[in-house]
Amino acid sequence: MATIDKQEKETLLIALGGNALIRKGQVGSIEEQFENLKVPIRQIASLSRQYKIIITHGNGPQVGNLLLQQESCTEVPRLPLEILVAQTQGQIGYMIESSLDTALMELGVWTKQLLITLISYVVVDEKDPAFQNPTKPIGPVLSREQAKDLPYPTREVPGGLRRLVASPKPVTVVEKREIKSLVDNDFIVICCGGGGIPVIREGRAFHGVDAVIDKDLASAKLAEEIRVDVFLIATDVEGVALGYGGPDQRFLRHMTLAEAAQYEAEGHFPPGSMGPKIEAAVQFIKKRGNRAVITSIGAIEPAVAGTAGTEILVDVKF
Amino acid sequence: MATIDKQEKETLLIALGGNALIRKGQVGSIEEQFENLKVPIRQIASLSRQYKIIITHGNGPQVGNLLLQQESCTEVPRLPLEILVAQTQGQIGYMIESSLDTALMELGVWTKQLLITLISYVVVDEKDPAFQNPTKPIGPVLSREQAKDLPYPTREVPGGLRRLVASPKPVTVVEKREIKSLVDNDFIVICCGGGGIPVIREGRAFHGVDAVIDKDLASAKLAEEIRVDVFLIATDVEGVALGYGGPDQRFLRHMTLAEAAQYEAEGHFPPGSMGPKIEAAVQFIKKRGNRAVITSIGAIEPAVAGTAGTEILVDVKF
Repeated sequence: MATIDKQEKETLLIALGGNALIRKGQVGSIEEQFENLKVPIRQIASLSRQYKIIITHGNGPQVGNLLLQQESCTEVPRLPLEILVAQTQGQIGYMIESSLDTALMELGVWTKQLLITLISYVVVDEKDPAFQNPTKPIGPVLSREQAKDLPYPTREVPGGLRRLVASPKPVTVVEKREIKSLVDNDFIVICCGGGGIPVIREGRAFHGVDAVIDKDLASAKLAEEIRVDVFLIATDVEGVALGYGGPDQRFLRHMTLAEAAQYEAEGHFPPGSMGPKIEAAVQFIKKRGNRAVITSIGAIEPAVAGTAGTEILVDVKF
Repeated sequence: MATIDKQEKETLLIALGGNALIRKGQVGSIEEQFENLKVPIRQIASLSRQYKIIITHGNGPQVGNLLLQQESCTEVPRLPLEILVAQTQGQIGYMIESSLDTALMELGVWTKQLLITLISYVVVDEKDPAFQNPTKPIGPVLSREQAKDLPYPTREVPGGLRRLVASPKPVTVVEKREIKSLVDNDFIVICCGGGGIPVIREGRAFHGVDAVIDKDLASAKLAEEIRVDVFLIATDVEGVALGYGGPDQRFLRHMTLAEAAQYEAEGHFPPGSMGPKIEAAVQFIKKRGNRAVITSIGAIEPAVAGTAGTEILVDVKF
């Protein structure tokens, strides 16, 4: 095999969606999560021969479980949300890293590849309007009885109420210098789990805040800050569709920034699902990113090769 | 201030005991833990001007709380112990790293210092005799009723029963190459939390096991593997004492390997507390480590300077 000079490798940031760990209808046992991870991780191991790799990931069900445990157990001090996010970074980071160890061993490159999972926190603006209007539901569905004394805002959902938290925009990834240095030194880096631990800067300190940062937007911010070449969002559908779920559903292989804005205005992208992914990909391209692709967990390799997924393109003027 | 060439800095590994986070008599709220951390962290920030720093830490109360929550909440899948250790690495790593950010900002060196918390796992031998004879109590005190259906071995303690787990010896830190590379590149590294996530190697995979690795022994292993210059164990007493707690208690400022063996044989070092710390320090010196010191959380700086704590010395033959 021809060796590739590591200085010439492009960087590829892969944001893994929740279905990389837990599929629809699963209870989310650890065995299921490790099994599910094999699909994206084998592809990522293979891609590591051609790209410098950064992996980010979600944490929705995992942080929800920790919240549920806390509400059920009054014997130990309740932890603030940012600490639970930190816990899920440890948990999921370990699962991804050890799965990647196996995949790299299968390829016979494990002993040559540096690989690290790092705890990451992301600064948000305390004046972000999201703090005035929490909209992100997290954690379990609570009965009216369970929810009545909680100090949180809640929203009605089928079966009860769910806690709402703010979802402010990521301003900067605190460990960006470290991540850049690691990538430059050819480490595979797993970071920004769950969108990062949300913090605000107050004078000479970072303080955790009660919020959840969208993991795709945090990934786009990191991709911009460390200047990755390819930003790939892996989710549970094959790409961006017009009329998604309807009779005329049509998946797009590419979409310009102007088209994205037009389809968005036409209501094609629901805010809770595909919306933030497109926003993240668009943001990356607008910040002079090179390539942004939205694809399924099963099609990461072909999407990088340009034969699957939806690529977001700059508007070219002829 | 004279600048110190980073190539000439010695490396200092500091293993923080549980009292760095939670003191005796505290419930262990997050506010208490952040407040307690200021004592060691300010000293470590100061030492980072002269030394390359690696920080390891315990996780006993934190993992105990997660176990208690799991036993109280049957609605979510129970997680194996190694996943809980991974969660505490995220939690405590974030708390140490963000505390160190503040201390480095106070010193005006934050923007120049790379700093990282990494998830670490540590290989143990599946044939380690510890697996046949679990001796380490973890988690909450359970009533006889609570404990009767648990699939774990337990031990009688005042007020009930506690779960016992194996405490096998650390064989190797999986991320040692990464940690060495980071230290060489002048990163402050926080790692090996809770003694590391315990794994065994099976063919081309690492698998988590139900065990807890002593954090001082894991730290000694790391100190040996990446060849640190100074290995410091910070705990809740000022150093090693003969006749500890008795009328003739006498703290030692140093102790040779031969003296350590003699005092050990005389029963001066209780197995649950000072025993493993001395074993870890002795092991490091026997593996041709340079300096090993056991001191209190409050006296890290003077111990490094040689004016506090107990130093373990090689036997010099005249």
